[in-house]
Amino acid sequence: MFESAELGHSIDKERYDAEVPALREALLNVQYELAEQARFPVILLVGGVDGSGKGEIVNLLNEWMDPRHIRVHALAEPTDEERTRPMMWRFWRALPPKGKIGVFFGSWYSHPIMERMQGNIKEAELGQCIDEITSFERMITYEGGLIIKLWLHLSKKAQKRQLTKLAENPETSWRVTETDWQHLKLYDEFSNVAEHVLRETNTAEAPWIIIESSDFRFRNLTTGNYLLEAIRKRLDASSPPHPVGVPPMPPAIDDKTLLSSLDLTLSLDKKSYHRQLAKYQGKLNQLMRHPKFRNKSLIAVFEGSDAAGKGSAIRRISQALDARHYRIIPIGAPSDEELAQPYLWRFWRHVPGNGEFTIFDRSWYGRVLVERVEQLCSEADWMRAYKEINDFEAQLIAHNTIIVKFWLAISREEQLKRFHAREQVGFKQFKITGDDWRNRENWQQFDRAVCDMVDRTSSEIAPWTLVEANDKRFARIKVLKTLCDRLEQALD
Amino acid sequence: MFESAELGHSIDKERYDAEVPALREALLNVQYELAEQARFPVILLVGGVDGSGKGEIVNLLNEWMDPRHIRVHALAEPTDEERTRPMMWRFWRALPPKGKIGVFFGSWYSHPIMERMQGNIKEAELGQCIDEITSFERMITYEGGLIIKLWLHLSKKAQKRQLTKLAENPETSWRVTETDWQHLKLYDEFSNVAEHVLRETNTAEAPWIIIESSDFRFRNLTTGNYLLEAIRKRLDASSPPHPVGVPPMPPAIDDKTLLSSLDLTLSLDKKSYHRQLAKYQGKLNQLMRHPKFRNKSLIAVFEGSDAAGKGSAIRRISQALDARHYRIIPIGAPSDEELAQPYLWRFWRHVPGNGEFTIFDRSWYGRVLVERVEQLCSEADWMRAYKEINDFEAQLIAHNTIIVKFWLAISREEQLKRFHAREQVGFKQFKITGDDWRNRENWQQFDRAVCDMVDRTSSEIAPWTLVEANDKRFARIKVLKTLCDRLEQALD
Repeated sequence: MFESAELGHSIDKERYDAEVPALREALLNVQYELAEQARFPVILLVGGVDGSGKGEIVNLLNEWMDPRHIRVHALAEPTDEERTRPMMWRFWRALPPKGKIGVFFGSWYSHPIMERMQGNIKEAELGQCIDEITSFERMITYEGGLIIKLWLHLSKKAQKRQLTKLAENPETSWRVTETDWQHLKLYDEFSNVAEHVLRETNTAEAPWIIIESSDFRFRNLTTGNYLLEAIRKRLDASSPPHPVGVPPMPPAIDDKTLLSSLDLTLSLDKKSYHRQLAKYQGKLNQLMRHPKFRNKSLIAVFEGSDAAGKGSAIRRISQALDARHYRIIPIGAPSDEELAQPYLWRFWRHVPGNGEFTIFDRSWYGRVLVERVEQLCSEADWMRAYKEINDFEAQLIAHNTIIVKFWLAISREEQLKRFHAREQVGFKQFKITGDDWRNRENWQQFDRAVCDMVDRTSSEIAPWTLVEANDKRFARIKVLKTLCDRLEQALD
Repeated sequence: MFESAELGHSIDKERYDAEVPALREALLNVQYELAEQARFPVILLVGGVDGSGKGEIVNLLNEWMDPRHIRVHALAEPTDEERTRPMMWRFWRALPPKGKIGVFFGSWYSHPIMERMQGNIKEAELGQCIDEITSFERMITYEGGLIIKLWLHLSKKAQKRQLTKLAENPETSWRVTETDWQHLKLYDEFSNVAEHVLRETNTAEAPWIIIESSDFRFRNLTTGNYLLEAIRKRLDASSPPHPVGVPPMPPAIDDKTLLSSLDLTLSLDKKSYHRQLAKYQGKLNQLMRHPKFRNKSLIAVFEGSDAAGKGSAIRRISQALDARHYRIIPIGAPSDEELAQPYLWRFWRHVPGNGEFTIFDRSWYGRVLVERVEQLCSEADWMRAYKEINDFEAQLIAHNTIIVKFWLAISREEQLKRFHAREQVGFKQFKITGDDWRNRENWQQFDRAVCDMVDRTSSEIAPWTLVEANDKRFARIKVLKTLCDRLEQALD
C-alpha cells in the first residue's frame, strides 16, 4: 500500500514557487464556489505517521484557502458529554454543513488503529470498526458529502530523520513529544495495523490518497492539487454518486402482509385497563430508577398512521415518570441547519446520554415511510436507508442504549371515524389537515412501506412491536407492557 | 414577600374536580396556538422550598398539556463543556425556541441563592448576580420571550409536615433525601436569602408569582390558571413590550467624530512591515502556548467597512497559529434556528472554552451597525443592545475571557479604489455585490453608528481599538501588536 510513497519523491524550489500561486488562486475559487452553491460539504481527513507534517498541511490549507470557511477538528480526549454517547456522536456533531470544509485530524480512524496497535482490541473487533466506518462513509457520500482521506506517509528512516530535525530546532522542538519517540519505536506495528485498516477502507466512494511526505514541497503541492481536483470535479458534476438501483422487493403475490395479519379486534375492557395501567406505570417508574439504568439509556420510537394514537400512548408513558427523566422529540419538518446535513444528523443530535430516556414521536423511519411514499427522496435514497438505520441503531445498542420501536396499526375505517371525531373536538391539536387526508389516499402504499420497514429493520436487538391499535386501551397497555419487558430484560 | 402565601390557602375537592377539565382544555389550546404562531417562547422557572411540590407541578403541567412541546431542564451539576464557559452558557443553550415551553428547575437563581446561604459569596457578589439576572431577563423579555417565575412556598411548619409525610409513604420516601432534612434545619437562612433575591428580581417584566403550596389543589389550580392567563395575554397582544423610546444621542454639533479624528495617512514601509510581521506573529504564537492560557480564552472581534481588510488582517493572525488552536466564525445571515432565539444566542453558541481562541469576522455588533442603519430592527432594539452587549462581554470577562475588538477604518475614497480593484480580480470572494454599494451609500449613517458603538461599548476591560486601515500594512501590524499586548497583559 505504501510502496509508491517510499520512492523519495521530491520537487525543486523553482517548480514549487512557480506552481503555488496559480494553485492557491484555483483553490480559493473552488472554495468560494463551494460556499456559494452550498450543495455539499467537504470532509477532509488528515492521517499519517508522526512527523509527516499533518499539522503543517492543515495550516497550509488554512493559509492557501479562506480559513473562514474551514473548520478544523482536532478531536483528542472526548468530553464527558461525548463519553456518555456512542463513539460516532462526536463526529456527527462536528460534521460540516453543506458549503463548508471540515478538517479532521484525529478522525474516526485514530482510535481503532491505536487500540489495535496497543493490543486492546482483537482482529475481529477491529473488523467491526472497519465495517462501521465504511458504512458511515458510504452514507455520507450518498448524502452528497465529499470525503477526502489523506494519508501522509514516511518510511521508518524518513520518520526518524524528520523527528530528529524537528527536535534539534529550538523553534520546533516543542512539537516532538515523548509519545512521538515511542511511536517511532513502534513504527512497524503501527505501519502494519495502519496498512491493514487503509486497505480495508479503501472504498470506491472514499479511497485513501497516500502522499509521500519526506519532501515538503512534493507533499504540499500533491495535496493541494488533489484537493483542487476533487472539489472541482464534484462541483462540476450535477449530482452525487448514487447506488446502482435494483428495484425494491415487490409485494407478495398472495396479498398477505404483516399488517393484514394483525387482529385489530383485540380490545381491553375499562376495568382491566385501569388495573393494568396502574401496574405497568408503577413498574416503569421503578425500572427507570433502577441503579443499572444509570449506565444505560433508552429510546422509544413511535410510528403509526395519522390518528393511530401515538400521542396518547406517549402520554401514558410520560405520566408514569418524573418530567426530569424523559424528553419527547416530535419530528416535523427539518430546520435549515438540519437540511444542510446528512439525513440522520437531526436524530443524532437528540441521542440520549447515560441514564436518559428519549421518546421520538415519529423518527428516522420517516425516510422509508412518508419520504418514500410521497417521493420526497429518490428510490435509491430510501433503499439504502434500511442499512443506514440498522447501522445507526447498532451503534446505539453497542453503547448500552435500549431501543424500543412501536408501529401503531389501525384500520382504514377506524381512521376515518377518528378523523371525523377530531373535527368535532375543540382542541387545536386535533385539526385534520390536508396532509392527513392525502396520507389517507396513499393507504396502500403506506401499508407496503410499513411491511418493508419491519422486514428490513426488525432485529433481535431492536425489534419492532406491531401494536393493534383500533382499541386505544389495548394499544396503550401493549405499549407500556412491552416497554417494561424490554427494560426489565436489559437491566437484568 | 411570603405573607400571603402562609395564610393556609386551600380548595376543596369538588371545586377542584369541577374546574380542572376546562382548565386543561384551555391550557392545551393556548399551547397549540403558541406552537402554531411560533412568535415567542415561554420560559417557566419553578423554584421554591423543598417539599413544596416543584417536581409535581412540572409533572402535572406535562400531563395537562402536550409534553411534546415542553422541554424540561433539571440543570444539576454542570458538565465539563459547561464548566469551561461562563455560567449562563448552559442556560443559553437550553433556551426554548419560539413556540415552545422550556421549564427550568434549577434555574439561574439556584446557584446564587445556595452560594449565599452557605456563606460562599458575600452580599456584594450576590448583588452582582442579581444585576446580571435582571439584565438577562429584561433582554429575554424585550426579545419577545415570556418569562414566568413561579415560587412554591411553604411555611417552616408546613415544610416539616410535608417532608415527614413524603418520608413515611414507602412510595415517595425515595424523594426525601438527606439534603432535604439539612435544608429544613436551614429554613430560616434559606428563606431570608430567597426573600431578598426574590424581592430584588421582582421586576415589571418578570415578576415572581408566589404560590402557597401546602394544599396541592390550591397550588395546582393557581399555577394552571396563572400560566393560562399569562400565555393567553401574550398571544392576544400584538407585540412584546418595548422599552420606552427616548431618542438616541444626536451627532455632535461641531461635526467632529472619533472616526474623523483618525489619521488615515499612517502607513508602514515594506521592510518594517515584514520585520514586525515576523516579530508579532512569533510572539503571538508563543503567547498562545503560554501555560496560563489554558485557563483563559480569547475572543477577537473584527468589524469594519466593506473592503477595510478584515479578512486579510485575520489571515495574518491565523498564519501565526496552529490551525487546531483557533476557530474563525464568519457572521452572515442567521439560520432559522438562530432566528427562533434571542439575538445573542447565535454568538453564545460559539463562545470558546478554556484554552480556546475564537475570531469573529463581524459579530454581535451587527445589531448596532448594519441592523441599525438598514432598520432591520427597531430603534428600541438597537438602543437596548449596548447594555446587552456590555453585559454579555462582562460575563465573558468574568470567566477569564480576553476580548479584543477591532474597528478597521478606511476613507470613502479608499473604499471606492478597493471596490474597483476587486472587480478586476479573479477570486470569487472579491465580487462586489449590491449590498456593498448600498452600504457605501449609507456611509454617514454608518459613521455615526460606529462612533456611538465605540462610545457605548468601549471599556477598560473590553476596549475598542480603532485601526487606521487605509494602509494595509500599518493596519495588520497594529492588529497583531494590539492582540499581543492585550494577551501579554492578561497572562502576566
